[in-house]
Amino acid sequence: MTKVKDIGEQGLLAKLHRFCPAEIIGDDAAVLDTEPGKCLVVTTDVLVDGVHFSDATTSPEDAGWRAAAANLSDLAAMGAAPLGITVGLGLNGDLRVSWVEGLYQGMTECLQKYNTAIVGGDVVRSPVTTISITAFGQVAPLRIIHRSAAQVGDAIVVTGIHGASHAGLQLLLHPELGYNLTTAEKTALIQAHQRPQPRLDVLLILQEILASQPEITFAGMDSSDGLADAVLQICRASRVGAIIESTKIPTSPTFEHWLTPKQALDYALYGGEDFELVLCLPQKPAKTLVQKLSQHAAIIGTITDSLQVLLYNEHQKIPDQVLSLSQGFQHF
Amino acid sequence: MTKVKDIGEQGLLAKLHRFCPAEIIGDDAAVLDTEPGKCLVVTTDVLVDGVHFSDATTSPEDAGWRAAAANLSDLAAMGAAPLGITVGLGLNGDLRVSWVEGLYQGMTECLQKYNTAIVGGDVVRSPVTTISITAFGQVAPLRIIHRSAAQVGDAIVVTGIHGASHAGLQLLLHPELGYNLTTAEKTALIQAHQRPQPRLDVLLILQEILASQPEITFAGMDSSDGLADAVLQICRASRVGAIIESTKIPTSPTFEHWLTPKQALDYALYGGEDFELVLCLPQKPAKTLVQKLSQHAAIIGTITDSLQVLLYNEHQKIPDQVLSLSQGFQHF
Repeated sequence: MTKVKDIGEQGLLAKLHRFCPAEIIGDDAAVLDTEPGKCLVVTTDVLVDGVHFSDATTSPEDAGWRAAAANLSDLAAMGAAPLGITVGLGLNGDLRVSWVEGLYQGMTECLQKYNTAIVGGDVVRSPVTTISITAFGQVAPLRIIHRSAAQVGDAIVVTGIHGASHAGLQLLLHPELGYNLTTAEKTALIQAHQRPQPRLDVLLILQEILASQPEITFAGMDSSDGLADAVLQICRASRVGAIIESTKIPTSPTFEHWLTPKQALDYALYGGEDFELVLCLPQKPAKTLVQKLSQHAAIIGTITDSLQVLLYNEHQKIPDQVLSLSQGFQHF
Repeated sequence: MTKVKDIGEQGLLAKLHRFCPAEIIGDDAAVLDTEPGKCLVVTTDVLVDGVHFSDATTSPEDAGWRAAAANLSDLAAMGAAPLGITVGLGLNGDLRVSWVEGLYQGMTECLQKYNTAIVGGDVVRSPVTTISITAFGQVAPLRIIHRSAAQVGDAIVVTGIHGASHAGLQLLLHPELGYNLTTAEKTALIQAHQRPQPRLDVLLILQEILASQPEITFAGMDSSDGLADAVLQICRASRVGAIIESTKIPTSPTFEHWLTPKQALDYALYGGEDFELVLCLPQKPAKTLVQKLSQHAAIIGTITDSLQVLLYNEHQKIPDQVLSLSQGFQHF
């Protein structure tokens, strides 16, 4: 089993070059063409072995896919089409070369699906495997999706199911949990965790809607840190509140076979890493958007002037929960 | 002494936000304006505690400056003016908050000198402190400096002294080496190591020369991995060779007080991290460039059709050395 230290830096780079477009190799930096009149959008993520991924639940191919998908999702959240990514790798010399190739394979599979590529990088020695990705995209200035643009009365749209990624992770960590799920049901949830789909496709539909109603403004972000976090961040940035109807939140149809309703709601609100978009826009275009998206898109609530994010159960007049950012994920 | 884990992720981010322009905080990604008709240039570096920096020789401020300078130097090497950088940090919870603030302070000091800024980032938990920087710049397509554009007969220009950064590092690691240097001499060498200056200023002079002679093409790169590496990389990419006259290579005037001529030459050729530019261009504009640069710029040799990089001592007819990439630095 060949290790990184067996082939050295130049040997490793030679193996990794096949994952990059030929024209970008060989200078101090990559050069990319941009379209006139568009803004540059830049986002970066660092992933650490044992903290953000682990061989126990994630193959190198899946770690690569997820890392690329997370960054493309941040671009989608800004309304931006991808131009490329750079990859900075910190690697232990004892790591298998096949692991590194698997990582690049997974990243390029994801990037190719969205017509983009690895355009540069750095590989260095490190005691802990670390993957640092920076993604670039471009967007017309009037089409940028900001968190801070939500307006009272806007509908809150989610572009798909929430909680599935966390459910998939739980099934990987505790296979016994899924004893009464079919193999297909388990596979679908695990796939949601291992191969999340950044919603760049939604941008095309938004553009269609904007083409006929150019005066509409959108607010939004992705739900990488959970649906609750996304709604709370948008409300904080926009200085508004929200009412969320918990029964309107699309979850996986299999949740009822193995989770209590409370667990299913917690997975959806706090699970994270579903990489859907949470968008705020006026009611009428929101309905059009949901119709044009897949069956799992939904309007889950409304922006209010209360500054609180209230969660209602169906038929209740008193909110079930007041959501707060302190329930979110803390990295330290 | 406050540690990162004492104030948590949000607490740390709140402290770091003051190092970033206010308008870029609060979305999934940063948005940057670009000039019409220019290409985007992107470069990335990963720095690992104990591999690329260490508290023994580097304060957090200097680690920050050096990390920013290395990336700006890669932009300069492409002919690109900086648009901004993103910073991905992997931090141990036990790290002092003041260390992280020092790092950001050093980065912003360097960036401000070159009219640019930190425009985005990510902070995550990691067992090993890791700094991952991606820099973006822009350049008109015809002004891109490629490694592959050197032509037979071109003069090889260096924009400044080589070997000083390595000498400074040696003085930090082995203070006894500098026993017959003055404090000012030691300080200058240590400063060359701790606060290298990316040569973005050279681009303005190149533009002046190009304005009167637009037909000139340049090749080049920076000397971050050593002067020998830069000449070899340019020759390999351009499928040419070079003759270098070792006595023409500008080194520090203090080298003769404490290094043998052989050591001084090794420092200059292989020391690395001087972050000067190595440029290949026709003899006449090369002379103009050297005149317009500071006293330490020089023409050190000529591009040949031999495919070898030969090093000559003054007055010798037989080359002293044939340089090869295998003498360079290997990361694993």
